[in-house]
Amino acid sequence: MEFHYICNDCGAEYDSKHIIYRCPACSGKAAEGEMQRGNLRTIIDPAYLKSLADKKNLSPFDFFPYEIPTPQAYPVGNTPLLGPERLRKRYKVPRLFLKNDGMNPSGSFKDRASQLVVGQALHFGEQKVALASTGNAGSAMACAGAAYGLEIILFVPETAPRNKLMQSVLYGATVVPVKGTYDDAFGLSIEFTEKHGGINRNTAYNPMTVEGKKSVAIELFLQFARRAPEYVYVPVGDGVIYSGVVKGFKDLLDAGLIERLPKVICVQSTKSNAIAQAWESGEAKTIPAATTKADSISVASPANGRMAVDFINECKGWASQVSDEAIIEAELELCKEAGLFAEPAASAAWAGYKQDLASGKITPEAEAVVLLTGIGFKDMKAVEDTIKMPNSVEPKLDAVEAFLFK
Amino acid sequence: MEFHYICNDCGAEYDSKHIIYRCPACSGKAAEGEMQRGNLRTIIDPAYLKSLADKKNLSPFDFFPYEIPTPQAYPVGNTPLLGPERLRKRYKVPRLFLKNDGMNPSGSFKDRASQLVVGQALHFGEQKVALASTGNAGSAMACAGAAYGLEIILFVPETAPRNKLMQSVLYGATVVPVKGTYDDAFGLSIEFTEKHGGINRNTAYNPMTVEGKKSVAIELFLQFARRAPEYVYVPVGDGVIYSGVVKGFKDLLDAGLIERLPKVICVQSTKSNAIAQAWESGEAKTIPAATTKADSISVASPANGRMAVDFINECKGWASQVSDEAIIEAELELCKEAGLFAEPAASAAWAGYKQDLASGKITPEAEAVVLLTGIGFKDMKAVEDTIKMPNSVEPKLDAVEAFLFK
Ligand SMILES: Cc1ncc(COP(=O)(O)O)c(C=O)c1O
Ligand SMILES: Cc1ncc(COP(=O)(O)O)c(C=O)c1O
Repeated sequence: MEFHYICNDCGAEYDSKHIIYRCPACSGKAAEGEMQRGNLRTIIDPAYLKSLADKKNLSPFDFFPYEIPTPQAYPVGNTPLLGPERLRKRYKVPRLFLKNDGMNPSGSFKDRASQLVVGQALHFGEQKVALASTGNAGSAMACAGAAYGLEIILFVPETAPRNKLMQSVLYGATVVPVKGTYDDAFGLSIEFTEKHGGINRNTAYNPMTVEGKKSVAIELFLQFARRAPEYVYVPVGDGVIYSGVVKGFKDLLDAGLIERLPKVICVQSTKSNAIAQAWESGEAKTIPAATTKADSISVASPANGRMAVDFINECKGWASQVSDEAIIEAELELCKEAGLFAEPAASAAWAGYKQDLASGKITPEAEAVVLLTGIGFKDMKAVEDTIKMPNSVEPKLDAVEAFLFK
Repeated sequence: MEFHYICNDCGAEYDSKHIIYRCPACSGKAAEGEMQRGNLRTIIDPAYLKSLADKKNLSPFDFFPYEIPTPQAYPVGNTPLLGPERLRKRYKVPRLFLKNDGMNPSGSFKDRASQLVVGQALHFGEQKVALASTGNAGSAMACAGAAYGLEIILFVPETAPRNKLMQSVLYGATVVPVKGTYDDAFGLSIEFTEKHGGINRNTAYNPMTVEGKKSVAIELFLQFARRAPEYVYVPVGDGVIYSGVVKGFKDLLDAGLIERLPKVICVQSTKSNAIAQAWESGEAKTIPAATTKADSISVASPANGRMAVDFINECKGWASQVSDEAIIEAELELCKEAGLFAEPAASAAWAGYKQDLASGKITPEAEAVVLLTGIGFKDMKAVEDTIKMPNSVEPKLDAVEAFLFK
């Protein structure tokens, strides 16, 4: 299929013959305290998209710019769409759905981007993928690399917790701990790719990271029997997942498969709210520091902030901010009332939905999908602290009865 | 649908009007050092099974003795069947498949049993489920309880590691730490149900635990386009999963949907090999102690040992024993060569397959499914110890080059 790129910020166009990351004209031009510029949108040939309207057995792969070889080796997506009966009753929201993207190969939504980056790497005959990440993007790429035999080089600040890197090491990625910040690791990974070749998969930097994430929109379209739900709630840090979701629905719109975009809601922590603030104020500024406990959405300088803000407006969505307390409460509620164990960042989307419901921003009748982007095992610290183990009882029934019924 | 029970050991039959656990005639009659007797097999009405042969859109639920209400609230099964390209090439085994049952709601195969136990509880109008478990069965039942609003009472020996109980606590189960052994907890849970009602879900004790697990066989039948694979490798502790797998294929055989049973291979650790030894010797004995690092298959006195041995013979399978070293190596290989993170117990099945391949027990051409029964996050100790973090490098490209290419 034909596709090209267009700069989100200056509108310059680029063909897709060679690998390209950010817009050369805009990149690096953001002033101190401003969100960076120059992320590229991927534009699929409109005639091709229209041809999909009549296709039987439509699949998310039909919308991907690169072919995915042997997807059975790394089965990304097709994640469950839950109808959480008890939450529906509790909040009187009969059309609530939870999309559990923790059920991806490495346990997070990020596998969707890594899948397409594999396609990109193989298309260009590259065997090496470098990236900077301390979290889910790193383990997703490492997982994909293991499945396809690609070499993954993962740059991390040396202060990154061992636990967060463990999964990537297990998958066989080469982890390079850098004496410096995340930005140092990010910069080094780019220098490395420029000199030694291979693909760079830094989130937002490589346009395939937004593009790969759009597969969830196509999947939702299919799970809703070929239509879009009314609302989708997305937890947001850098704004790449958010943009991917909207991009998928935009492609469906351009294909003529849906008639309007669903409203996609951007949920952030009040302690990591750069995109929400930028959307409200119209000024694409970074924030001094992000301090939310929901690690995967803790981002002061969102790598895809400008595109995310543009997409919020384009789909007539909005940004909601939730407190860290609400996030942890939301995680515990998903566990206890739906049997769904999602990491704090993911649970933020559920907190945002509930807050909007309480404030009347959406009605109980609205059809809403809450996107749960990562499995609970990924980030256990915050909930571990909430757990109290009860005292032990003697191995006698009356002791048990006293314990249970006091 | 009609069904009744038959004692695995004395052949006595029981109807299904009331809840029944073990055969009253055999139960408790095993001598010291012998595997327990009296587990019940569930026999589905043969005419009903035959009627399924012509049914379109066959589903595992068609084989379940109880209806599962709103399965969308707790989407068990439909787990990915991987075609692991790199392992296939490495071992020249083009028809190898990995069934990733870690992709279940609570992260393990045990969700299959808990799903049917929910159906059983609701059929009898019960709201309480009690069980003893320190591991995946406990969290699976807790997860199901959260999804359906059932009260789960989980008896555990007080020495059980906090980490293993955390998930169950998060799902809102009432955890009762008992000053005593697992056997004490097991006994108490039964006393509790006898006096206070509700369902007891102890593994093997409640016949629905074997019966629920059979859903994987129906799923495999459907994933293989309505036929059975030739071999299925199953990791074994108590022998409940194993028996469930064979039972599912037996039902398919009785329905006339397959012509013969696949060979289902029982894989145990050499350090927890009661069922393997019993199968080899023909004597249903327990072992003095189980000491494998693969926690979920560490069982000295298998609760479903006799049935498992009978089923190994019935399907013309066999038992293979693997070392703990081979199990950990297998887990790391699945991570690095397939991007699949499975817990040690699950990885034992992969170790068993490789060992049988090396010894010629199965040929490289054989079509084999390795059943991976739990996600890696469930039991991290053994692999954590294998991880060495490299030293940090200065944030300069030449330092990175020296690090990578030395
Ligand atoms: C689980 C989870 N949720 C949400 C996000 C936020 O995605 P983005 O940074 O693209 O906004 C991430 C990103 O790391 C994540 O891992
Ligand atoms: C991940 C995993 N694999 C294998 C087994 C073994 O199953 P069984 O005890 O029924 O033989 C278990 C049981 O706890 C398990 O949790």
